Amino acid sequence: MSLLSLPDIMIEPAVRAALREDLGRAGDVTSDAVIPPAMQARVALVAREPGVVAGLDFARLAFRLVDPQIRLTPRLEDGARLQPGDNIADIEGPARGILTGERVALNFLGHLSGIASATRGIADAIAHTGARITCTRKTTPGLRFAEKYAVRAGGGANHRFGLDDAILIKDNHIAIAGGVGVAMARARAAAGHLVKIEIEVDTLAQLDEALAHGPDAILLDNMTPETLREAVRRIGGRAIAEASGRINAETAPAIAESGVDLLSAGWLTHSARVLDIGLDFLD
Amino acid sequence: MSLLSLPDIMIEPAVRAALREDLGRAGDVTSDAVIPPAMQARVALVAREPGVVAGLDFARLAFRLVDPQIRLTPRLEDGARLQPGDNIADIEGPARGILTGERVALNFLGHLSGIASATRGIADAIAHTGARITCTRKTTPGLRFAEKYAVRAGGGANHRFGLDDAILIKDNHIAIAGGVGVAMARARAAAGHLVKIEIEVDTLAQLDEALAHGPDAILLDNMTPETLREAVRRIGGRAIAEASGRINAETAPAIAESGVDLLSAGWLTHSARVLDIGLDFLD
Amino acid sequence: MSLLSLPDIMIEPAVRAALREDLGRAGDVTSDAVIPPAMQARVALVAREPGVVAGLDFARLAFRLVDPQIRLTPRLEDGARLQPGDNIADIEGPARGILTGERVALNFLGHLSGIASATRGIADAIAHTGARITCTRKTTPGLRFAEKYAVRAGGGANHRFGLDDAILIKDNHIAIAGGVGVAMARARAAAGHLVKIEIEVDTLAQLDEALAHGPDAILLDNMTPETLREAVRRIGGRAIAEASGRINAETAPAIAESGVDLLSAGWLTHSARVLDIGLDFLD
Amino acid sequence: MSLLSLPDIMIEPAVRAALREDLGRAGDVTSDAVIPPAMQARVALVAREPGVVAGLDFARLAFRLVDPQIRLTPRLEDGARLQPGDNIADIEGPARGILTGERVALNFLGHLSGIASATRGIADAIAHTGARITCTRKTTPGLRFAEKYAVRAGGGANHRFGLDDAILIKDNHIAIAGGVGVAMARARAAAGHLVKIEIEVDTLAQLDEALAHGPDAILLDNMTPETLREAVRRIGGRAIAEASGRINAETAPAIAESGVDLLSAGWLTHSARVLDIGLDFLD
Amino acid sequence: MSLLSLPDIMIEPAVRAALREDLGRAGDVTSDAVIPPAMQARVALVAREPGVVAGLDFARLAFRLVDPQIRLTPRLEDGARLQPGDNIADIEGPARGILTGERVALNFLGHLSGIASATRGIADAIAHTGARITCTRKTTPGLRFAEKYAVRAGGGANHRFGLDDAILIKDNHIAIAGGVGVAMARARAAAGHLVKIEIEVDTLAQLDEALAHGPDAILLDNMTPETLREAVRRIGGRAIAEASGRINAETAPAIAESGVDLLSAGWLTHSARVLDIGLDFLD
Amino acid sequence: MSLLSLPDIMIEPAVRAALREDLGRAGDVTSDAVIPPAMQARVALVAREPGVVAGLDFARLAFRLVDPQIRLTPRLEDGARLQPGDNIADIEGPARGILTGERVALNFLGHLSGIASATRGIADAIAHTGARITCTRKTTPGLRFAEKYAVRAGGGANHRFGLDDAILIKDNHIAIAGGVGVAMARARAAAGHLVKIEIEVDTLAQLDEALAHGPDAILLDNMTPETLREAVRRIGGRAIAEASGRINAETAPAIAESGVDLLSAGWLTHSARVLDIGLDFLD
Repeated sequence: MSLLSLPDIMIEPAVRAALREDLGRAGDVTSDAVIPPAMQARVALVAREPGVVAGLDFARLAFRLVDPQIRLTPRLEDGARLQPGDNIADIEGPARGILTGERVALNFLGHLSGIASATRGIADAIAHTGARITCTRKTTPGLRFAEKYAVRAGGGANHRFGLDDAILIKDNHIAIAGGVGVAMARARAAAGHLVKIEIEVDTLAQLDEALAHGPDAILLDNMTPETLREAVRRIGGRAIAEASGRINAETAPAIAESGVDLLSAGWLTHSARVLDIGLDFLD
Repeated sequence: MSLLSLPDIMIEPAVRAALREDLGRAGDVTSDAVIPPAMQARVALVAREPGVVAGLDFARLAFRLVDPQIRLTPRLEDGARLQPGDNIADIEGPARGILTGERVALNFLGHLSGIASATRGIADAIAHTGARITCTRKTTPGLRFAEKYAVRAGGGANHRFGLDDAILIKDNHIAIAGGVGVAMARARAAAGHLVKIEIEVDTLAQLDEALAHGPDAILLDNMTPETLREAVRRIGGRAIAEASGRINAETAPAIAESGVDLLSAGWLTHSARVLDIGLDFLD
Repeated sequence: MSLLSLPDIMIEPAVRAALREDLGRAGDVTSDAVIPPAMQARVALVAREPGVVAGLDFARLAFRLVDPQIRLTPRLEDGARLQPGDNIADIEGPARGILTGERVALNFLGHLSGIASATRGIADAIAHTGARITCTRKTTPGLRFAEKYAVRAGGGANHRFGLDDAILIKDNHIAIAGGVGVAMARARAAAGHLVKIEIEVDTLAQLDEALAHGPDAILLDNMTPETLREAVRRIGGRAIAEASGRINAETAPAIAESGVDLLSAGWLTHSARVLDIGLDFLD
Repeated sequence: MSLLSLPDIMIEPAVRAALREDLGRAGDVTSDAVIPPAMQARVALVAREPGVVAGLDFARLAFRLVDPQIRLTPRLEDGARLQPGDNIADIEGPARGILTGERVALNFLGHLSGIASATRGIADAIAHTGARITCTRKTTPGLRFAEKYAVRAGGGANHRFGLDDAILIKDNHIAIAGGVGVAMARARAAAGHLVKIEIEVDTLAQLDEALAHGPDAILLDNMTPETLREAVRRIGGRAIAEASGRINAETAPAIAESGVDLLSAGWLTHSARVLDIGLDFLD
Repeated sequence: MSLLSLPDIMIEPAVRAALREDLGRAGDVTSDAVIPPAMQARVALVAREPGVVAGLDFARLAFRLVDPQIRLTPRLEDGARLQPGDNIADIEGPARGILTGERVALNFLGHLSGIASATRGIADAIAHTGARITCTRKTTPGLRFAEKYAVRAGGGANHRFGLDDAILIKDNHIAIAGGVGVAMARARAAAGHLVKIEIEVDTLAQLDEALAHGPDAILLDNMTPETLREAVRRIGGRAIAEASGRINAETAPAIAESGVDLLSAGWLTHSARVLDIGLDFLD
Repeated sequence: MSLLSLPDIMIEPAVRAALREDLGRAGDVTSDAVIPPAMQARVALVAREPGVVAGLDFARLAFRLVDPQIRLTPRLEDGARLQPGDNIADIEGPARGILTGERVALNFLGHLSGIASATRGIADAIAHTGARITCTRKTTPGLRFAEKYAVRAGGGANHRFGLDDAILIKDNHIAIAGGVGVAMARARAAAGHLVKIEIEVDTLAQLDEALAHGPDAILLDNMTPETLREAVRRIGGRAIAEASGRINAETAPAIAESGVDLLSAGWLTHSARVLDIGLDFLD
């Protein structure tokens, strides 16, 4: 069963905006000048490096919104692993429209596949543990819904989508509020019954204080695997344990083996390289 | 004289959209719950690593749109070089609003400073030559105007902003049109008098063919420094020479020393890491 | 401490849209024709019936967006109880603008105060118990964020803000999925670590089945107070207990006394009468 | 002949906004998790109480925008009277999409049918007279066009759609302008030839003064049936007579029997209960 | 008393859109390159030909949205007559912003002043009669509210603002409906009490038929002054008489002298030349 | 090969906005009242005067967005020359929708065809020379992309689309910057490699100074044909020569015969009369 669907109504505004950004006030002057309007083309979206694909619906919409006669037929689904040369989708239709939509389609596809691939890299590295990799709110402005989707496509879990869908008490909140206890009490009083409360701690002493107030989750920031192991022992299943700080494919296994439930990494969404996907003209 | 200005009217829609994306339907439930409304704070935007700052107006608007009482005072200007610990700006105002706006402000600032820093890295590496570094249309959907600005802040030059503001004839255009000559002729007939024409070539033979049609610029794709040197010789100042393919801080000097006018790199805008900038609470 | 804040950036689009809806293509032709432009006025927002006020920021913005010279000075805060004749706010400025903005301001204020007042009615009726009143997704299209806010102003708690911020498995989901067990298992696998899972049950038998899968909350639909009492006993604190169906000021006390944590009612947001608030010209 | 049509282009923005409001940044996480993507369903929109249906096009668009494969087949038209159990429309298509669109479709349908039903209640109560029921500008922000449409579906007439499409001189206008005469003269001078002028009066003395200036319509506010009868006599067909204040199913007949042309009631649009319409899964 | 006001909230979207259209994705590259940021300027908006000014608020907003430090001080009001060399407004502030906003400000001001001037030309030509000049729905897409305002500024009256604010039965409506009688009867049944009904006739026979059904206004299309005189006689004050077809400064007096109430002309809004207004740098 | 294409995605927002502007809050009350919903119609778009057609896609979209059952079949293409009576397109579908969409379709078609026709008039007048006619940024706010397209349809060339896609140094820039040399130097330093630089000169002396700095194009403002001839001689092919000022069908030939490359005229887009195109009902 797919956990990945986004209805077109959620995708379409972003794709329309990207096309208008690229078409500007005169449209694709190169293709209009150089390509005869009746010319048809068949092209393939092809992986140029290993990774995981994400964003096929964005690419499909980009071509369709440029010209409804263009048909994109997926050969793979979002979340599929890619090897160099893999055919991701076939595209047929007027050559002009395919050339016009190419860059926007690839910009979405490369960006989201890059995030999915980075996520998959960590997910694979910790697959032998019970931990999962998750993202943060450190996303590219305007694309959070899409980047969170790409994390899911890469086998990751989603964290908060915004400031409004869970309470996450960070160090500055605690400092300004005047301590873990008062912050937790205020959060508890304010939270709706379907809103979970997470609190960030930097030390085991803070952890003990936090645990006394029964949070749903605890963010263990920048701890060594050894300290994490002790933290997990103290939490004892009473809250979800999330580790953050310096998560990458090398560090992730040891962190995950500490017994935490989650590893979170901002760079998945803000600094992942695009995945190199190209568009090959077949005839 | 600054070449970097973007009027707020160009920035504001992106910042508003990012704030609404983060505030969702309930706003900042954590700060609302935990921080007393009358609490004031003073914080500093501080560089955590070396680089170049870009996006201060985006950060200023993010805080002001959350709460007009928040005042951001820049200590540096976009384009300034950063060392770890450098104070980029001071921010004063209601603590709630500062915490609410923090993530959006940093998401813009980190993303754009990352691009500026990457650009500056190449610009410095080729500073001993006459060449400049430039970007492409491989940008993050919806943020092209901002990312192109960040490239300028990093000392780079801008390429096309969209499909509509210059003609760039690529390999697929040539193939579908039926050759360099017919493509150039059609482009010439269609271009407005302020529209330049650039054409991509992969070999010296293609270069010779292209030169016969008098393009304003030639994109020399994936050539070695030696081939580039020969290409520059053949162009002989009749067109701008732009080199693309595998541009990074290591390869850039040799490429630039070939005598080309421009080095273009898509990764500056699509794959640069964010620059680590933090927000420190002073009291 | 106020739990009620909505930054203006969240409110402004709705107020702008409402003003444009009312101003149409020619503006306020009556006031333009009849009221001299230099005329000033002082008016008061006054309660005409008992209730709770909500939406003052919407009213303030409505007047300010019509004419920045109009000043609204609140005499009460959102959430305050009202008696007939209570002065809610004073407004001063150009008479034309006050007359132009009056209807939009009152439409927001009456609608949101109506919801706050209805919520407060139930909250008061169950104040002797540990239960709270909450709302649903049965909101007026386009105004959910505002109506949820009004529920908070009336002393209520918020339920889900949308399909995306918690999992709520209803009868149709269970039927189509093929049973409580499979639905719960799929939900568990899909939910992020900050996403709670609630499941709806109609009978005690269903409740027992659901409890076996450890949901965070259980929606007990259309049960008598006696059955609710037994349900609460069986839940035994392992999940939040929410009662729904036929909640009003008469039925709420007995339902709340069953020991449930929450009473939810769609009519608070979709069918509450507006609260009668008027605008009195002082001179 | 139908007087009820609204082209989809007028409806679509409101439906898109409502869907995006409900789908948020992650979509329908429950249905995505619990319902297999290939599952099909047949459901019926069914009336749960007597009333009048309005808003079928809003429901149709809601489902179609979620998934174009969903087909809604109306069994009744807007304006039709409903009995409990009446089948309003059949819906077929992917089960996920039907569950995803259900709440938005019902929120529109229930809200607009509630207004149509309330209007029909008054229209029926005064059907033995020549008077008609009409609405006001006291509408829900953002939904005026839809609520006015629902009034028409319930057999009512529409009043002004905004501040711009007719002149309505109210008590405050008269007071600030300095009297009925000066207000009417200024209105007459400003009104376009297709713009009617209505004036509000509270007493028979004001009525006489107003009549001397030849308004197109007179709003008789809060008068007893007896006073209304005398007012109608004095108007003598020279202007449309509209009665407002405390209009409901009990008071309406006596008010209408006074001979007025119109009864206007704000609560039709601002305080009508939603009509209970449900969605039954057939298989 | 001014009948001309449009609140900024009605104007701002059009001005923002025009500025973004002009600024594109890189802003004003010429002024950014050439003008030092600290440079201040004083300029004057000056009439280059006789006419009537309209659109000062559009110009003021254009400059303010580019740079809030720019101050526009009107020397005249919309509707004022202009002679060549007249100073319309003074503008002070940063030179860059003034140069950046100049074109958008002048595009609005010239376009709307052109319409006002054309309208004033007809209004003056018929000032000795009781007739007024009015516009139509033949407006520039997106600017109807502004163009109708310019007609008022030029001394004209407004006709319908859209398809929705009055009934105007044209020849095609009559033909498809099956005659004047049936069309009028259907219109009467559908019209709200504040909606006027106008019907177009081409001959005196059609006029007689129309008059039998009591329309509020009659559009006498393409009749000679003599026929118009007879038509006015037959109407006898029972309806507003509007003449259309070939209205210009030469033909208007004779047409107006026929006794009609209104002359309507589409070209006022769709084909009026811009009025030449320039921006002079004072120092 | 057509150089005229605009993808629907560029056109649709303008057409939607125009339809909503015309439909307002109640839709087409006349057609709804008078025309039975099942009535079908066949109509033709017919030229009433000679000219050039432009905007057929705008008209097609206007009808389709009102009712997807309406089919517009073009008989000509944008850019075609028209004689009175020429059939431009056939339209079939529901009569109501055709009447509802008529005005918006014709407003676009008449406006854009008017611009195309005016452009063609000049283009024909200079066809015996090597010069082309071009437009300016003096366009109707919000419609620049469409008006520039219409210029192309009339055989003209496009100038800058906005402040951002080329550098055009005007007299005020030179004055504020402190001379031609400093302005050119700053522009050269700021311009991207695909951005051309044009400079305006009023005298031959200024021309000589400008030429020394190697601009891509020179705008020769308000010079006589004789002076233009001398200017062209001095330029000697080193830059594009553009003549502006008082360009019309009478003056254009002599100006073009001076040897300039381009004639530019603002009135093509800001003051061209609409072309008279009508909609004839066939049955």
